[in-house]
Amino acid sequence: MTDADTDRSGPTAAVLVIGDEILSGRTQDTNTNTIARFLAALGIDLMEARVVSDDHGRIVEALDALRSRWDYVFTTGGIGPTHDDITADAVAAAFGVALPEHPDALAILSRRYGDDFNAARRRMARIPEGGVLIANPVTDAPGFQIGNVFVMAGVPKIMQAMLEDVAPRLRTGAIVHAQTLKVSGVGEGAVADVLRAAANQRRDLSFGSYPFGHGSVGEIGTQLVIRGRDADQVAAAAHDLIAELRNLGIDVAAA
Amino acid sequence: MTDADTDRSGPTAAVLVIGDEILSGRTQDTNTNTIARFLAALGIDLMEARVVSDDHGRIVEALDALRSRWDYVFTTGGIGPTHDDITADAVAAAFGVALPEHPDALAILSRRYGDDFNAARRRMARIPEGGVLIANPVTDAPGFQIGNVFVMAGVPKIMQAMLEDVAPRLRTGAIVHAQTLKVSGVGEGAVADVLRAAANQRRDLSFGSYPFGHGSVGEIGTQLVIRGRDADQVAAAAHDLIAELRNLGIDVAAA
Repeated sequence: MTDADTDRSGPTAAVLVIGDEILSGRTQDTNTNTIARFLAALGIDLMEARVVSDDHGRIVEALDALRSRWDYVFTTGGIGPTHDDITADAVAAAFGVALPEHPDALAILSRRYGDDFNAARRRMARIPEGGVLIANPVTDAPGFQIGNVFVMAGVPKIMQAMLEDVAPRLRTGAIVHAQTLKVSGVGEGAVADVLRAAANQRRDLSFGSYPFGHGSVGEIGTQLVIRGRDADQVAAAAHDLIAELRNLGIDVAAA
Repeated sequence: MTDADTDRSGPTAAVLVIGDEILSGRTQDTNTNTIARFLAALGIDLMEARVVSDDHGRIVEALDALRSRWDYVFTTGGIGPTHDDITADAVAAAFGVALPEHPDALAILSRRYGDDFNAARRRMARIPEGGVLIANPVTDAPGFQIGNVFVMAGVPKIMQAMLEDVAPRLRTGAIVHAQTLKVSGVGEGAVADVLRAAANQRRDLSFGSYPFGHGSVGEIGTQLVIRGRDADQVAAAAHDLIAELRNLGIDVAAA
């Protein structure tokens, strides 16, 4: 995106992934990608993502940096019943509010666990003061929203389900349209000049190049991705780019 | 990790993933996980990871925040031949140095491309002043190291190959040993008290809990992960935890 595009941008957002298991390499994070695609469909621009460990100070610091800068912050992880689940405590600290048991959360959890509703599980009913619950149709234990921060589970299936409850609360923007062109038989260095000229000419659009097949046997080439909020402009740019590349004898087609 | 453990920690590191394609959701980042596992094997603690877009200001800002705080920073993405590849420019700006063509990089690229060595490809020979090349055995175009920052390709296969050249340059630490226990038939709320007591008792170790099978048909349970730099302590903690959980009639085994 160029500066010229900024005026027409939608709301902005950041993702904060919380969890030692991501930084140790034990677990491959997929929540960021899920949230990225969810936001793209709503016309909300994901501006940055961060991963921090289960450390109170680091969570608070990252939360404060992100929530003051972007319209929305989505956190994943650290809201379970065990001692390493400290996200609610950190969010309450960041907002400077108490962390009382929320009556609705208490009712939901008590209904789910019945006789097994012990002290550890009761921790999951603690919601920062002023927080609004986010429904969890998978295991019931809720997430919560406070201000512009949405606090969700780390388990991908639960996180994804929570997004459904979050969606109606978000201000949406114009969707970014994307068109991918597949260049075959040459590397991206062969199309860089044409691509740069197109990017200079159409400053409301963004042009990306993502090579494939490097150094391996078989097909080489690059995927050119044109993105912008005006579908007609994107289509026109794709049309022109295909024509210019074919003029140079380059094999290109809409992907 | 607890504070008590900090003294014995290895070098620290951060990952900075650069690329619109990650934030748009088009591409699932896997480089962070690859680097996390690479660092873990060297006893280097990955402290945080960030993703930023192909934006000069954002890259410089994130770089400066990370390189001043952690021992090493590993960046991926944005070092190709196209106009959206601006990582080298941003790194030079962050370090306040020029971005001249590096003679060795020029030689490598000129050899690879021969008659096709055009201006766009020549951009890849620009290395921030004082930078040392990182070998790219896949497509030749090198990455580089400047100070404590390692700048690598975004394509996973190339990034992974570059790590081989980076490894010998890194100060290593004591490896973190991990032992996983699999608890079956109950959720993590059923083991939380025992886990918390273990964590309080052994403050040199970290104890994590990662539930599985939530709300679905079939097996439910949680994976308990004990981590620490002293293998004997980790083994002893695992042994004790298994005994305590079995005393409560809980099905648990080393995973």
